[in-house]
Amino acid sequence: MKNKLWEQSAKLNPAVEAYTVGDDTIYDTKLLPYDLKASLAHAKMLEKISVISTGEYKKIKTALHEIKNLHKEGKFTVKLEQEDCHTAIEQYITAHYGEVGKKIHTARSRNDQALTMMRLYMKQSLEETKQLLTLLVEKYQAKSKQTKNIAMPGYTHMQKAMPTTVGIWLGAYQDAFNDILPLLDAALKLIDQNPLGSAAGFGIEGFKIDKNLTTKEMSFSKVQKNPVYASISRGLFELSTVAQMGQISLLASKFASDMMLFTTQEFSYFSLPKEYTTGSSIMPNKNNYDLFEIMRGNGALVTGYQSQLQLLLTGLSSGFHRDLQLGKEPLIKSVEITTSTLKLLIEVVPKIKVNEDKLKESMTEDLFATKQVYELVASGIAFRDAYGQVKANLEAKD
Amino acid sequence: MKNKLWEQSAKLNPAVEAYTVGDDTIYDTKLLPYDLKASLAHAKMLEKISVISTGEYKKIKTALHEIKNLHKEGKFTVKLEQEDCHTAIEQYITAHYGEVGKKIHTARSRNDQALTMMRLYMKQSLEETKQLLTLLVEKYQAKSKQTKNIAMPGYTHMQKAMPTTVGIWLGAYQDAFNDILPLLDAALKLIDQNPLGSAAGFGIEGFKIDKNLTTKEMSFSKVQKNPVYASISRGLFELSTVAQMGQISLLASKFASDMMLFTTQEFSYFSLPKEYTTGSSIMPNKNNYDLFEIMRGNGALVTGYQSQLQLLLTGLSSGFHRDLQLGKEPLIKSVEITTSTLKLLIEVVPKIKVNEDKLKESMTEDLFATKQVYELVASGIAFRDAYGQVKANLEAKD
Amino acid sequence: MKNKLWEQSAKLNPAVEAYTVGDDTIYDTKLLPYDLKASLAHAKMLEKISVISTGEYKKIKTALHEIKNLHKEGKFTVKLEQEDCHTAIEQYITAHYGEVGKKIHTARSRNDQALTMMRLYMKQSLEETKQLLTLLVEKYQAKSKQTKNIAMPGYTHMQKAMPTTVGIWLGAYQDAFNDILPLLDAALKLIDQNPLGSAAGFGIEGFKIDKNLTTKEMSFSKVQKNPVYASISRGLFELSTVAQMGQISLLASKFASDMMLFTTQEFSYFSLPKEYTTGSSIMPNKNNYDLFEIMRGNGALVTGYQSQLQLLLTGLSSGFHRDLQLGKEPLIKSVEITTSTLKLLIEVVPKIKVNEDKLKESMTEDLFATKQVYELVASGIAFRDAYGQVKANLEAKD
Amino acid sequence: MKNKLWEQSAKLNPAVEAYTVGDDTIYDTKLLPYDLKASLAHAKMLEKISVISTGEYKKIKTALHEIKNLHKEGKFTVKLEQEDCHTAIEQYITAHYGEVGKKIHTARSRNDQALTMMRLYMKQSLEETKQLLTLLVEKYQAKSKQTKNIAMPGYTHMQKAMPTTVGIWLGAYQDAFNDILPLLDAALKLIDQNPLGSAAGFGIEGFKIDKNLTTKEMSFSKVQKNPVYASISRGLFELSTVAQMGQISLLASKFASDMMLFTTQEFSYFSLPKEYTTGSSIMPNKNNYDLFEIMRGNGALVTGYQSQLQLLLTGLSSGFHRDLQLGKEPLIKSVEITTSTLKLLIEVVPKIKVNEDKLKESMTEDLFATKQVYELVASGIAFRDAYGQVKANLEAKD
Repeated sequence: MKNKLWEQSAKLNPAVEAYTVGDDTIYDTKLLPYDLKASLAHAKMLEKISVISTGEYKKIKTALHEIKNLHKEGKFTVKLEQEDCHTAIEQYITAHYGEVGKKIHTARSRNDQALTMMRLYMKQSLEETKQLLTLLVEKYQAKSKQTKNIAMPGYTHMQKAMPTTVGIWLGAYQDAFNDILPLLDAALKLIDQNPLGSAAGFGIEGFKIDKNLTTKEMSFSKVQKNPVYASISRGLFELSTVAQMGQISLLASKFASDMMLFTTQEFSYFSLPKEYTTGSSIMPNKNNYDLFEIMRGNGALVTGYQSQLQLLLTGLSSGFHRDLQLGKEPLIKSVEITTSTLKLLIEVVPKIKVNEDKLKESMTEDLFATKQVYELVASGIAFRDAYGQVKANLEAKD
Repeated sequence: MKNKLWEQSAKLNPAVEAYTVGDDTIYDTKLLPYDLKASLAHAKMLEKISVISTGEYKKIKTALHEIKNLHKEGKFTVKLEQEDCHTAIEQYITAHYGEVGKKIHTARSRNDQALTMMRLYMKQSLEETKQLLTLLVEKYQAKSKQTKNIAMPGYTHMQKAMPTTVGIWLGAYQDAFNDILPLLDAALKLIDQNPLGSAAGFGIEGFKIDKNLTTKEMSFSKVQKNPVYASISRGLFELSTVAQMGQISLLASKFASDMMLFTTQEFSYFSLPKEYTTGSSIMPNKNNYDLFEIMRGNGALVTGYQSQLQLLLTGLSSGFHRDLQLGKEPLIKSVEITTSTLKLLIEVVPKIKVNEDKLKESMTEDLFATKQVYELVASGIAFRDAYGQVKANLEAKD
Repeated sequence: MKNKLWEQSAKLNPAVEAYTVGDDTIYDTKLLPYDLKASLAHAKMLEKISVISTGEYKKIKTALHEIKNLHKEGKFTVKLEQEDCHTAIEQYITAHYGEVGKKIHTARSRNDQALTMMRLYMKQSLEETKQLLTLLVEKYQAKSKQTKNIAMPGYTHMQKAMPTTVGIWLGAYQDAFNDILPLLDAALKLIDQNPLGSAAGFGIEGFKIDKNLTTKEMSFSKVQKNPVYASISRGLFELSTVAQMGQISLLASKFASDMMLFTTQEFSYFSLPKEYTTGSSIMPNKNNYDLFEIMRGNGALVTGYQSQLQLLLTGLSSGFHRDLQLGKEPLIKSVEITTSTLKLLIEVVPKIKVNEDKLKESMTEDLFATKQVYELVASGIAFRDAYGQVKANLEAKD
Repeated sequence: MKNKLWEQSAKLNPAVEAYTVGDDTIYDTKLLPYDLKASLAHAKMLEKISVISTGEYKKIKTALHEIKNLHKEGKFTVKLEQEDCHTAIEQYITAHYGEVGKKIHTARSRNDQALTMMRLYMKQSLEETKQLLTLLVEKYQAKSKQTKNIAMPGYTHMQKAMPTTVGIWLGAYQDAFNDILPLLDAALKLIDQNPLGSAAGFGIEGFKIDKNLTTKEMSFSKVQKNPVYASISRGLFELSTVAQMGQISLLASKFASDMMLFTTQEFSYFSLPKEYTTGSSIMPNKNNYDLFEIMRGNGALVTGYQSQLQLLLTGLSSGFHRDLQLGKEPLIKSVEITTSTLKLLIEVVPKIKVNEDKLKESMTEDLFATKQVYELVASGIAFRDAYGQVKANLEAKD
């Protein structure tokens, strides 16, 4: 059996093969369950339009089921010479069920297979992210409620500014994470269209394929009709997913920056139980908040992956280009990092210990200067004059 | 009169002043109309809660109106020593209407003023972008309809792949631009909350300000209640606006890349009337499509501004930081570039001339190889075998 | 007189003109002195190879001198319809000195003119940056020497780690900035080749131009012989300049982050005289280190401009593309920001006030835990066991 | 035995452990040989200053040798609970050679271990890159020489401009790659300083460690004396390595873009033997240049990794931060991609087949318009007038 779906008489040069496939087998092994789902829908459609018989459909169904189980057990991986999971699946069917394997690729291309598989992956990732986000919002809400009356200095320019409370500070993150939910919905709506049948980007001629059937089977909301649009959405749809992961990660990174500052010995406003902190290999005194450092750094990573995707798309004309394969890593890594960050925050936010003594001590007089100004305003002095008086008093004290 | 709203006894070092203000006066001069709108709403509210009298409110209204007119005529610019438009406005009122100028800043800070002003700017920019996008979608639709039956080679890997039509190709951009509209709506929804009254990020104590009134006056959908959230949304909201500009610009850049390829002498599928192309200073033979090169490059610029914004936000804890001022340039430039790109496409898409002869000539036999495969499949041969036969025939011909 | 050097019978559409020229007239007005220098060298060469007479050369020289003076006084700016400074110069000569203006463009193109002009700009920018860097290194060295014995806590993970001194901390920046000098030299060496005569990227046929003469006149180290190389170095050479600006700005940004942390009220290790800090429009108590915030943000801006340049180059094949014009902004802004940052640091580093009392107070016992471990090691206990003992003691105290 | 070098009484929460360690075990397994080299030098130094005996040194040497062999056979990998290769090595020694394992960490920290290990990796990577680059320059030179007389159209704005030759076009890449060599040298010079002994960033007190000995053992050029500088160079040194990888990858990407264009059926100037091209899974007619697409995309990836590193560094104050661990991926991936690109180009450049017939056919009359202008100039007409005449003639023909 030939290794590649397109194998020509000349064998592909091994250096070219290794270079072009790169890490794609790793990512395709991760994406395989989504290809299986799409392949099953495709087979059902082929049966309906009589390209394959019901018996053949059943064989394919069984084969796909077997692959799914092997994959779960870690026994089905994509090999370098297969290039991708699409080939690995077709070869498995042909090897175990013969002739029918040669029919599964009727009326599709690896291009629309990849599009469909990645779209299913993105849909599930966005759904999971929504759930995690919702849960995290609840955690912030609960913690914010619990701490609503604990006074805390508010900072601007990293200098003490005016009084606030721990509850308001935490409530800000509650609101900010909550407001990302509609952005996720918009990305989901964009992505929720079935590209199967766009083939290599120019559709299928000569077959009356039933896109509505596959749309329903895979729970897409609608068909993506224009095949050239299906093709140019590769990368752009990934980008709209990764952009949301970036928005989340950047916000989590801001929270992590806050925590890094507020857990320094000099601030000491908050701490975490010892099992959440780490030590040093030479300094026995250390108690470090590595989890927030990695969270801060992960914001940078996800943003960097977004840049990578944008760079990949830059300068590409329409039609499939192999470069687009390289978009799998930035997509998958962004999703994995972001969901792991959300999971950790869900675990950690409720565990934050508030050091009330230290906070009380930090509520120094200067924080109330603006209040003094407003008291003067209430007594009838114009705001700018009242401000001037209080400022002059403070400068005199220096 | 003091130059700065915060002026202390020590005068700010001029090198520090020049360095920290930078180009901000340019951008604040652009944003000034939005600050005027917000200041008027704020004054109305101060009147309602009796911080200023009706007479004082009228003076402020008149002053703001005067500034608006001066600005329209290019006679009101923000000066370096004023730092920002907020200061320029307050100083104008005080200089021309005395005492009341000293009251306008009651119950607000430059932080929430800047937040409000930029949000009004973003709302209007997103609305304008939606209108332009809608118009452009119509232009693509019309042109696509006009050309729906003109055959054209479809490309993958920049090699001829399968037949398509000019209409399908243009229709892909119609759909792709159209699908960005809901993303703009989601960004709009996020941004559409009134931050006025969040002051320096910690609200106002001692005044019962009426946020609902200012919300209504400025046509926001709701109040952004948590002041710390208002503060941390600085930069993040800009980013969600710029992200949409990036999505549009990247798509326009892809269309420009197509046009650059398809207008080469070697392809010659399309052209533009001479008044849309440029020449060379030494080569009298040249006919260049600079507008598409700049459009392709502008995709890069907008993406770069998005990176700039992300970098600016990276590592910042909560609370206002002066770094955020530097986010005005990437926001405004992204909006200006993107809307100018849309306007140009609206003008140019209808003008594209289709070279039917050249397209007809390019519809070579190899484009129909997949069709041959499907004919064999229809005659009962399994897809993979049919593919093999056609491929072998083609290789034999080489 | 025609407005453009390439003007054809059809007049360029104004929307296309405005879109393609964009902000280029601003940047070309800045770059004009370098074009004048290159044009003078070119004219001298044309005289030598007898394309123009000595009398004509003198006219050109006078004209270029006049433009230089007008430019200095702000009276010579590039107009939109001229597109660029190359056109503006040629038109000035023709308008004031007639026929000879029509000869100045012999054996050159706007492409090699732009390449030469930008390279002269980059050379001067890199030289100026080297001088500023050298001066800054001296300032750090002096301050470091002054403070070498003042103890200061060293931090890892933003937690107190081990003792260090203010002098060592400042000395680190001295070394780090100093080590950037050879990187600047490498960029300078790369850029220091004369592209004049590469014309539109394919050289000049039919004229024996003397590249050695122009090389000497403009003080380049050598001729860039291959004209296609001259052409593809557009953008790549800018990038190698901007990369060094990025390295400097990122380091300055790190120092600014340190200063922002160490000047918080909670740390209070350092301060600056009042004329270097700013206040708030509503909080009379504030004393802010805006200059370090802007410096931190400027690190982000310069890095963002580097990304922009990289994005602009991504996907471009060889040969000139108009997109490359857009590289002027990221180059010039990066240089201007970086040199202004260096100038400010040169002014500010010597002014840093060390709060010795606060530093003394901060040298708490835990900082010496590693020293205790080493004392045990000196007494014969294995390192890992000594570490365990000290750690156990510390945990018992908690 | 404890799993971590810093283990405290409270066990680290597994979610935090998984989150903070992330993929670091993968990268540390790759970097392990460099840590072994550094550990051997460190042990030799400890023996010299009598912290360990000669017998103990020999045990360590044997242990490190064993680990090296196990690693080569793929039998030594870093485990999640070990966190890093530093811990894995110390534990191996202690497990197999007892007491001495507890001494190896004397006078060092995981911070300077990581710094040293990564610097050794970067030095070797830069050296290897230099060798590959030198070889590639030779390949371009040979191919350029071979094709120096084959005429080829030169393009600007993707339109035919003036005549050039295949040899000149290839020679441009020869020169451009060659000119990157001094940039690599500058990066190498920067990196070539020994950070071992900087410990956690604040040096070692109480031991007279011999940095000159370790410097010599590891073939560094000099000691990096200031320990805080050693610490802040983490990330910045990686960036100066990755920046060079970016410069190479971007240039390779430009060459790949040229090849993608010039191998389209419409241009057909060049081709590669069939074993270097790939086919399609549904279109039997396809012959694709995937290797150049991946090369073009890899330019985007490496640039993206550079952005990631810059983002990671943005906002970080001095002193070690755990975020920096995340810099290993962008560094290692950039190096691996870049060296694989160079290796493939070395293989492929000599294989490029020049289609002389097609090139001859493409040398159309318009390419010689500038030559006509120069002939008129030679006959005494001013350049701008000559240009006008030729242009008018061309427009008349249209």
